[in-house]
Amino acid sequence: MIRLNAATVERLPRYFQILRALRARGREYVSSEHLARLLKVDPSLVRKDLAWMDSGLQKVGYHVASTLEKIEGVLGMHNTKEAFLVGAGSLGRALMGYRGFSEYGLKILAAFDIDEWKVGGTVGGIEVLPMSKFADLVRRLNVRIGIVTVPAEAAQAVADEMVTAGVVAIWNFAPVTLDVPDNVVVRNENLAAGFALLSYELERALNIRRSETASGDDGIEN
Amino acid sequence: MIRLNAATVERLPRYFQILRALRARGREYVSSEHLARLLKVDPSLVRKDLAWMDSGLQKVGYHVASTLEKIEGVLGMHNTKEAFLVGAGSLGRALMGYRGFSEYGLKILAAFDIDEWKVGGTVGGIEVLPMSKFADLVRRLNVRIGIVTVPAEAAQAVADEMVTAGVVAIWNFAPVTLDVPDNVVVRNENLAAGFALLSYELERALNIRRSETASGDDGIEN
Repeated sequence: MIRLNAATVERLPRYFQILRALRARGREYVSSEHLARLLKVDPSLVRKDLAWMDSGLQKVGYHVASTLEKIEGVLGMHNTKEAFLVGAGSLGRALMGYRGFSEYGLKILAAFDIDEWKVGGTVGGIEVLPMSKFADLVRRLNVRIGIVTVPAEAAQAVADEMVTAGVVAIWNFAPVTLDVPDNVVVRNENLAAGFALLSYELERALNIRRSETASGDDGIEN
Repeated sequence: MIRLNAATVERLPRYFQILRALRARGREYVSSEHLARLLKVDPSLVRKDLAWMDSGLQKVGYHVASTLEKIEGVLGMHNTKEAFLVGAGSLGRALMGYRGFSEYGLKILAAFDIDEWKVGGTVGGIEVLPMSKFADLVRRLNVRIGIVTVPAEAAQAVADEMVTAGVVAIWNFAPVTLDVPDNVVVRNENLAAGFALLSYELERALNIRRSETASGDDGIEN
């Protein structure tokens, strides 16, 4: 298995999106400069990100179709990965209904909740089961991946339950850092972190515009 | 305004989470090594990430409370940032109900949808209005931030409408790369990208375990 660093792996789905759009437009080759412009990164980073592909960059650029195939391969997009989701609140339900996951091979087999009122319904064809059935079903179905969409204060207890049951990869949407054994893979998805970056960049952009128009001296400071 | 690179800004909310948890436990100082262990990064990266703070790292480590305050300041967490959300489907509704945003100063003023059936309801106290009112309300309320939670095929048209109305920062959850003018800030949030990384790391972890137990020769290949 090819060993890539985390930042590269995180960018690969964006390459995938862009290359697929290019392929749909009938494009056969794309240069690293063009990819870099679309991704808003440096061309040298594109070449680094895609350096693991043998026969990757040619004089005419990257071959769109075979680059797509290699990314699909390295991300295991064709292998189905079954997961259980815990927490059928609004975020959990959104993930259950999200269509973009199947492309990456993720299949949410079932959702679990401690709230009796949520149990029994289905969202996007996925059933909500009582939490009391979780551990037994993880073992019987040999589920490796757990998705945490419970409130922050419940997340650590849920993660502990997952690990005890045999889950080895946790995708955590609760805004806390989970404490798990070293052999468990965790990915913390902090939705607010994305917003922090957007808001920081917006502030910077507005500051630049303000200083550019400062010579106009319109008296507006804020 | 302090200028930080995007990767640092993206990590700051994680520092914030960790530091807050430490403060709750009554911790006064924390070393870069300790922070690095919790974040699963190198201590030198922690020192780089926090180098912008004057009087940051002392012999006893970082002062927890004042580091928290500085991060809140640089991320503008105390300034309310008003946004409109377009697309009141399951993901849109999840974001409307998400409690973690207010901490970062994000306030979703209203949601918009073209689907008459979704219009009129409220989620998390936020009203869903008809899309026909969007542009006018952006102008009247001087809203700068737009959140895109429509399906992929509708996202570019919605982004165009946002830009025309005067939105200058777009937080895009649709799995497409948006084409916007250079003076508009875009943050693409690809939920599936997070999963790609988790699944890649899981595969690697399982491969390592397999090769470690290979001497056992239990005949299991997959």
